[in-house]
Amino acid sequence: MTESLADFNAFRSRMNDLILDSGNLTMSRFFNLDHRAYEPGALGTKTKEMLGLVSSLVLRCDDCVTYHVIRCHEEGVTREEFLEVFAVGLVVGGSIVIPHLRRAMARLEEVAAQ
Amino acid sequence: MTESLADFNAFRSRMNDLILDSGNLTMSRFFNLDHRAYEPGALGTKTKEMLGLVSSLVLRCDDCVTYHVIRCHEEGVTREEFLEVFAVGLVVGGSIVIPHLRRAMARLEEVAAQ
Amino acid sequence: MTESLADFNAFRSRMNDLILDSGNLTMSRFFNLDHRAYEPGALGTKTKEMLGLVSSLVLRCDDCVTYHVIRCHEEGVTREEFLEVFAVGLVVGGSIVIPHLRRAMARLEEVAAQ
Amino acid sequence: MTESLADFNAFRSRMNDLILDSGNLTMSRFFNLDHRAYEPGALGTKTKEMLGLVSSLVLRCDDCVTYHVIRCHEEGVTREEFLEVFAVGLVVGGSIVIPHLRRAMARLEEVAAQ
Amino acid sequence: MTESLADFNAFRSRMNDLILDSGNLTMSRFFNLDHRAYEPGALGTKTKEMLGLVSSLVLRCDDCVTYHVIRCHEEGVTREEFLEVFAVGLVVGGSIVIPHLRRAMARLEEVAAQ
Amino acid sequence: MTESLADFNAFRSRMNDLILDSGNLTMSRFFNLDHRAYEPGALGTKTKEMLGLVSSLVLRCDDCVTYHVIRCHEEGVTREEFLEVFAVGLVVGGSIVIPHLRRAMARLEEVAAQ
Repeated sequence: MTESLADFNAFRSRMNDLILDSGNLTMSRFFNLDHRAYEPGALGTKTKEMLGLVSSLVLRCDDCVTYHVIRCHEEGVTREEFLEVFAVGLVVGGSIVIPHLRRAMARLEEVAAQ
Repeated sequence: MTESLADFNAFRSRMNDLILDSGNLTMSRFFNLDHRAYEPGALGTKTKEMLGLVSSLVLRCDDCVTYHVIRCHEEGVTREEFLEVFAVGLVVGGSIVIPHLRRAMARLEEVAAQ
Repeated sequence: MTESLADFNAFRSRMNDLILDSGNLTMSRFFNLDHRAYEPGALGTKTKEMLGLVSSLVLRCDDCVTYHVIRCHEEGVTREEFLEVFAVGLVVGGSIVIPHLRRAMARLEEVAAQ
Repeated sequence: MTESLADFNAFRSRMNDLILDSGNLTMSRFFNLDHRAYEPGALGTKTKEMLGLVSSLVLRCDDCVTYHVIRCHEEGVTREEFLEVFAVGLVVGGSIVIPHLRRAMARLEEVAAQ
Repeated sequence: MTESLADFNAFRSRMNDLILDSGNLTMSRFFNLDHRAYEPGALGTKTKEMLGLVSSLVLRCDDCVTYHVIRCHEEGVTREEFLEVFAVGLVVGGSIVIPHLRRAMARLEEVAAQ
Repeated sequence: MTESLADFNAFRSRMNDLILDSGNLTMSRFFNLDHRAYEPGALGTKTKEMLGLVSSLVLRCDDCVTYHVIRCHEEGVTREEFLEVFAVGLVVGGSIVIPHLRRAMARLEEVAAQ
């Protein structure tokens, strides 16, 4: 867990630009679609971001977890709610999720401290 | 998609009994913990069941999807809300999710028709 | 392996229609994007379909494998080429892929016999 | 769970022959290597088959689980030992493993009844 | 492979405390259950730890592999036995496991050198 | 993304030697088989390396992606072709692939700059 949130965001932003500027339409359309999937509809963005967070946790993608922890925090997910999303992800995904849960907790501390 | 919901439930119930009666404490405790993870807390059961549904979809487990479609329906998840949970799962998990999404839609029709 | 190709295609087609007619824009846009990802560009459709096939095999999605076996056959992938795509998928994905490889071989026989 | 052990073995055997007779050396060498990985060495075949079983369970491959349940039974794995292998797989892999655990229990009953 | 075993253990311990002190009962019960799954029963702890190790390898979780390499070493797993567990994991999981196998070998050297 | 290509190659080479010199025949035979799976046959090595790359991307293995980016570059895969392989991997594997895609793009820049 050596990478700071600032470094995470800088690399993410630089690489997203590189992908979006590459001229490959499939990838830029996918990025656009990915963005829109979390817009409010029958479900609000807060709920959708929690869906994204639990999916990232059970699929064990640390960077995806970091991103959705940030977004959930912005949408007002409380500490207790975060813990319950994590708990569902842990039970669904099993002990193999634990290392990712540890890093998710560290990110949560980091985000809450800002 | 030849297995009816009745057959699904009968096999599920019979096998759960066999596992719970096997005398293995780790497994019976896990089943208990799994049950309690969806009880209301900071998040309600409806939200937690949607978390379980999207996790099942991105992990591509048809039986888990069937179970959570049933439970979400019982908790009052509407058709529009189901579609938005499916959409987040599809974007997170990619086209590899599509065959499971088709079966999820078939289950949704089946549950809604009851 | 009880489902015929005709049944596979009928269920696939009926459920795709249901999804596309559901009114959820994220899902219909994803389906459109999925279709376009295999259009010819710097790489031809034949190569892209082989990429889709090997991805489906290592991700162990039988329905996805069936779909790409059909499409690869339409694009002129030969029996020897199919076997080499399968071999790469087997070595990358390991013995856990073998049951899916068996079903892929059965689909290949079925498609070739038509 | 409609496929009998006899049908499982017949399809498995027929398709393995087709793969081994296909002339693709990578695949036939892989099958040979897969077979030899379970031969006794510093660890006995019984232990190695339990390793194969738990791997199949956490990777959620029903056919692989069926195969290793048969092989473990042949190697003298007892009912209590099977349950403990299943329990480790369940805790490592989480509730997403449960549908596969149900089918594993059904296969265990089937094998034990022979 | 820049993180030392000492750093691994320190982060693991600090984050486990944070999770266990969070007040979320589902997570603390899961941690307790995870611990008990490896206690001796019909199978000894050494065998169960090898089951945990091969599961971690095929699921490609470096931190889980590190943890079970440490525990297996404590339980008396020999170098030859470690290699055979790794070999089963490699054949089951395929070449995608190789980068994790490299890190597992590095951890094994590190643990053996202590 | 702090590890340079030189560090990646040095660790990879040192650990491969350790594995191949360990005396475990299953692992050394697997490595040999892995190498031969990409030799030209009905499909050329360039196509097979692209199959390896897309498999690595959808299975989300950064080190495997790095290896196949290097090999594809050696086999003459152009920037446009790389982007199309990435695009297929992104659509098949979904947004969970994006962090790995970012690192793949960074590796592509690194390889192209040499």
